[in-house]
Amino acid sequence: MADEKLTTQAENFSEWYNQVVLRAEMADYSPVRGCMVVRPYGWALWENIQQSLDRRFKATGHVNAAFPMFIPMSFLEKEKEHVEGFSPELAIVTHGGGQKLEEPLVVRPTSETIIGYMYSQWIKSYRDLPILINQWANVVRWEMRTRLFLRTLEFYWQEGHTAHATEAEAREETRRMMDQYTNFAIEDAAVPVIPGRKSETEKFAGAVQSISMEAMMGDTKALQAGTSHFLGQNFAKAFDIKFLDQNNVLQYAWTTSWGFSTRFIGAIIMTHGDDHGLVLPPKLAPIQVVIVPIARNDADRSTVMPVVERVASELGANFRIKVDDRSEVTPGFKFNDWELRGVPLRLEIGPKDIEKGVVTAARRDKPGREGKSTLALDQLTAQVAELLTEIHASMYDKAEAFRDAHIYDPKNYDELKEVVQNGWAFSWWCGSKECEARIKEETKATTRCIPFNQPDGEGRCIYCGQPASEKVYFARAY
Amino acid sequence: MADEKLTTQAENFSEWYNQVVLRAEMADYSPVRGCMVVRPYGWALWENIQQSLDRRFKATGHVNAAFPMFIPMSFLEKEKEHVEGFSPELAIVTHGGGQKLEEPLVVRPTSETIIGYMYSQWIKSYRDLPILINQWANVVRWEMRTRLFLRTLEFYWQEGHTAHATEAEAREETRRMMDQYTNFAIEDAAVPVIPGRKSETEKFAGAVQSISMEAMMGDTKALQAGTSHFLGQNFAKAFDIKFLDQNNVLQYAWTTSWGFSTRFIGAIIMTHGDDHGLVLPPKLAPIQVVIVPIARNDADRSTVMPVVERVASELGANFRIKVDDRSEVTPGFKFNDWELRGVPLRLEIGPKDIEKGVVTAARRDKPGREGKSTLALDQLTAQVAELLTEIHASMYDKAEAFRDAHIYDPKNYDELKEVVQNGWAFSWWCGSKECEARIKEETKATTRCIPFNQPDGEGRCIYCGQPASEKVYFARAY
Repeated sequence: MADEKLTTQAENFSEWYNQVVLRAEMADYSPVRGCMVVRPYGWALWENIQQSLDRRFKATGHVNAAFPMFIPMSFLEKEKEHVEGFSPELAIVTHGGGQKLEEPLVVRPTSETIIGYMYSQWIKSYRDLPILINQWANVVRWEMRTRLFLRTLEFYWQEGHTAHATEAEAREETRRMMDQYTNFAIEDAAVPVIPGRKSETEKFAGAVQSISMEAMMGDTKALQAGTSHFLGQNFAKAFDIKFLDQNNVLQYAWTTSWGFSTRFIGAIIMTHGDDHGLVLPPKLAPIQVVIVPIARNDADRSTVMPVVERVASELGANFRIKVDDRSEVTPGFKFNDWELRGVPLRLEIGPKDIEKGVVTAARRDKPGREGKSTLALDQLTAQVAELLTEIHASMYDKAEAFRDAHIYDPKNYDELKEVVQNGWAFSWWCGSKECEARIKEETKATTRCIPFNQPDGEGRCIYCGQPASEKVYFARAY
Repeated sequence: MADEKLTTQAENFSEWYNQVVLRAEMADYSPVRGCMVVRPYGWALWENIQQSLDRRFKATGHVNAAFPMFIPMSFLEKEKEHVEGFSPELAIVTHGGGQKLEEPLVVRPTSETIIGYMYSQWIKSYRDLPILINQWANVVRWEMRTRLFLRTLEFYWQEGHTAHATEAEAREETRRMMDQYTNFAIEDAAVPVIPGRKSETEKFAGAVQSISMEAMMGDTKALQAGTSHFLGQNFAKAFDIKFLDQNNVLQYAWTTSWGFSTRFIGAIIMTHGDDHGLVLPPKLAPIQVVIVPIARNDADRSTVMPVVERVASELGANFRIKVDDRSEVTPGFKFNDWELRGVPLRLEIGPKDIEKGVVTAARRDKPGREGKSTLALDQLTAQVAELLTEIHASMYDKAEAFRDAHIYDPKNYDELKEVVQNGWAFSWWCGSKECEARIKEETKATTRCIPFNQPDGEGRCIYCGQPASEKVYFARAY
């Protein structure tokens, strides 16, 4: 897979992306239109992401459960905006066990409805609240144009669903979980993200308010990398989720939902990847360190392999490692292969290194001389740990610098039209759907989010010139 | 949930089972017929089972991946026995995105077909073999009569699918994975199991040979608790899984599949449970130790709570623990509640215990005086570890003794008819489908497995009296 040259990002970013995903064996096309096969290397990355997020969910008091993937069609119809939003994307089961079903079943596109129904059965009193449940699941949305990881008919995600006694608590939860997502993105994936409110047009079907985090990909397009929704009492009213409060008065609960999907793997690839292939963040990489023995002949091999084994056993206790001792390919082939697969750190161990008591380290994030160093064999664990920490920091800084260099503050609408061709515009917006729609129509840029972090003062809407109290990111998006 | 008395096992085992599952909040019925909701307590148990098995899969060289849950109907039809076996149980998606599909999609009942197709794309040469992939997934089989965990339309499982260059390797793999299952059942779930071959009638649709492990439930019925299939070249031929061998000759691969599902939760419940509720094996229990402060008044509380917190923090470092400091219910209520939920060990900490420098321990597997002991506060971690080990061993021994007491060697068919009413028969069988069918028809007992462990010599078929070279277990089964 490493022998053919990749299309470069500059030549064709989209083609580069497809080639990297396929050749690095992250995922493959399946015989079912729009569905993907997540191959072992891609799934191992997803498992690391899952663990990393799941730890955060549990630390904030959430528990996991599993709800049916089939939902009666009538359930979706109970929340008007929800069914309008999701109807065009549904997969429908009409037959089961050789019989036509009395009521068709929907394959879940998201689970607010069936979980809402169960909550209405379980919640009786304020003592049952809050209820804080997450599930790791597959969901289906019948998309017309699909891309591996980015948009597939079936995808994998987690969906948190919580119910609370008060509006304030539910709003706090919505924000808390977005904070967990952004913390994960920054600390573990080295993906700089900007959290903020979605516009009314862009929010989740059925939500009172949606918040998202937005990331800039290597082609400057935006990718929504996780969302958290304050659902108000919309689903509580649709599904009759009521509780007796401390004064024995029956109240509707306040609910939230929040989701994070395999789409984020696309974000990692397009944030960090380069013309050599994937560049994976050290904390999530399935293989953090690959060890390549350098041996020209049997004599070399008998010097090198015992050291390789010792190093592997030492590093294996603290890191996810792989020894590439294939004999049918050259070291050069191996270097390209592991670069394609984005392994953060490569250690080369040859007879000369051993003589000097060192190994040669090559950082994936800095190909070429700049990323090379020699590590002392007797301090390997500490030095590898340090290097991985540096790689993470350096990947984050590079991505952030790239992003910030492509965020503009256009002076007027003409400038906006230009900058969104190769970047984001951060502009005052009056908040009207009309201006938003016009801009989208004329530039293909949508409102990404109204960041929590706002400048002081006021301005004038970049489109209509009316007074505006908030700035928003406009960008073309995945 | 702990305030109403459970139906006893003797009164009605099946009703006892349903009550325990619901009241211990392991699972709940869903609004979709036959689909279950696995509640957080049940899912936490499943997560522990998953980790425990996944560790074994990875240690034996397997990796995880994810394949689409939709399978083209035509794929199933490629393997004649497979489609005959599964057709009656399929859920069919006929519409997607508002359109009727050209070819209906099946929601996977199992994934040999779609994975077989992908393997045919990936495997070119003997160097690509073996391929050892597992997936954790939901599957759907449209069952008519359903029971929580035991038989549900949608259930959760893992399915391993491997491809090999030789028949011997594939047969070895089939057996290796059954060994992993039995090791898990015995070592981690304390469930005694008997591994063996399935009869031709009872084997997996499409397999050359199926092996299973069979467990005896508290009502003496058998439960098939994990299966591993040698598929020969059946699926390789159906899906054209070919490779160039070392002599450059094109060969069909040899494949296996093996699966283990949420059904096993039912096995744990029905192997160990008693009239007080669940009894969970310590290695898998979501809560291994529950700590109940005993305080009659505020003075007690101020003595007891600091010790409870210290103990919780010490034990929390090594065990999954829970402090039950609810003030609205009595200690007695709490004892019943955690007994219902099967927590292996309860520690009671009151002012008198503290005075003596001890805590009172109560084992779930031995309710009453026999299971009570006092542990020294200053040796708690070691003593708790020891107790949990003892509990595991004692649960296993008890289940094994119960099983062995209910396995009979009937002298003739009349005796067989009697013993299978409340136990298993271990009998010589000539191997003919006719005898097997007659016994099933007349006694409701099916052949469970032909155990690997066979007595020496030969005998005569319990039904027809013809010479027989192997003994088989006959039992009524879940």
